[in-house]
Amino acid sequence: MAGLLITFEGPDGAGKTSALTELVPQLRQIARQPIIETREPGGNPISEAIRRIILDPQNTAMDKRTEALLYAAARRQHIIEKIRPALAADKIVICDRFVDSSLAYQGAGREIGVNAVGQMNEFATELLTPDLTLYLDVPSELGLQRIAAHRQSQNDRLDQEALSFHQKVRGEYLDLAQEYPQRIKTIDATQPLADVIAACQRVITTTYADWFK
Amino acid sequence: MAGLLITFEGPDGAGKTSALTELVPQLRQIARQPIIETREPGGNPISEAIRRIILDPQNTAMDKRTEALLYAAARRQHIIEKIRPALAADKIVICDRFVDSSLAYQGAGREIGVNAVGQMNEFATELLTPDLTLYLDVPSELGLQRIAAHRQSQNDRLDQEALSFHQKVRGEYLDLAQEYPQRIKTIDATQPLADVIAACQRVITTTYADWFK
Repeated sequence: MAGLLITFEGPDGAGKTSALTELVPQLRQIARQPIIETREPGGNPISEAIRRIILDPQNTAMDKRTEALLYAAARRQHIIEKIRPALAADKIVICDRFVDSSLAYQGAGREIGVNAVGQMNEFATELLTPDLTLYLDVPSELGLQRIAAHRQSQNDRLDQEALSFHQKVRGEYLDLAQEYPQRIKTIDATQPLADVIAACQRVITTTYADWFK
Repeated sequence: MAGLLITFEGPDGAGKTSALTELVPQLRQIARQPIIETREPGGNPISEAIRRIILDPQNTAMDKRTEALLYAAARRQHIIEKIRPALAADKIVICDRFVDSSLAYQGAGREIGVNAVGQMNEFATELLTPDLTLYLDVPSELGLQRIAAHRQSQNDRLDQEALSFHQKVRGEYLDLAQEYPQRIKTIDATQPLADVIAACQRVITTTYADWFK
């Protein structure tokens, strides 16, 4: 496939969404190819239906491996319906979260095991791997403070997790960044948002200079 | 775990459901432990919700790996909520279809690959394997004839498959029976139903004589 798959990763409160909101329009102005911005479940009816099962607050009996399989199923359909066709059309796909999120959240955070979750996700992705991953790193305490500040009265199950969970998630992200230094670039997300955005843009446009004017 | 997990497998039209309807009450009369009869999705709300996504005729865009992941997710929850607790309580669990169905239908029938589907299902089962599997074997033509005769006006996606699909499914079941002769016992399901039931009962009560009076 000839396109470019760039993923954004980070624990809750790292500011991925805020950063992408400003970064993507800036990148579009200088990109030589169309940019598709997406995130799981990716807007397709099947993945949306799967997501509703995962996030339904009534599903308190959900086993953590059931949850990991459902995330992988939603991911698979998102890849098939949106990511693969865009890459096949030489587009730049910017995706908010991908397999690394499952390794960090289900593998480490929920303690299923990173290898088991990774292997199961290979079934879903058929080894589709991001060309570049921007990891927005933030200490867990600061991440949780930011979430609390922004929160309205949401009530999905993931929001009920404790600090220790988020610390395990961050620890796995840091391990992944160390294990795959070529693919994963760490951005200090304690910086002001404008600096985070500038750092992300610099990494992307220097790593893939040919793709940008 | 101290209970007994017995699964029934076979292509569509093999007569599993008809056989179980008569067999299970007979086994209950002679069993030394309670018998739990179950089938995926197993009556729990999460697996039922997953099943609705799989069988929704509107979901024509569903990728075959998405489907396999969803079956595994529903299986996982069924194991956690019903099968494991019953086995832990020393009960006899009789389950209509289990992992072998995914190997035959998704792995071989849909041509994802038996090894890939098997490995992914190990994530779901954590290697929980039936103690005994009764494989009701029937030629694909006869199986499809029986389905057509019994059919009302159902319209789920699986019913729209062709003969060649069912032949691949049966071929994989036969391969599995050859590969795991200790676990999988083949029953000739072209026989009259009463003979199929008697054959199943004989295999179960001779293999696990201590469990029956």
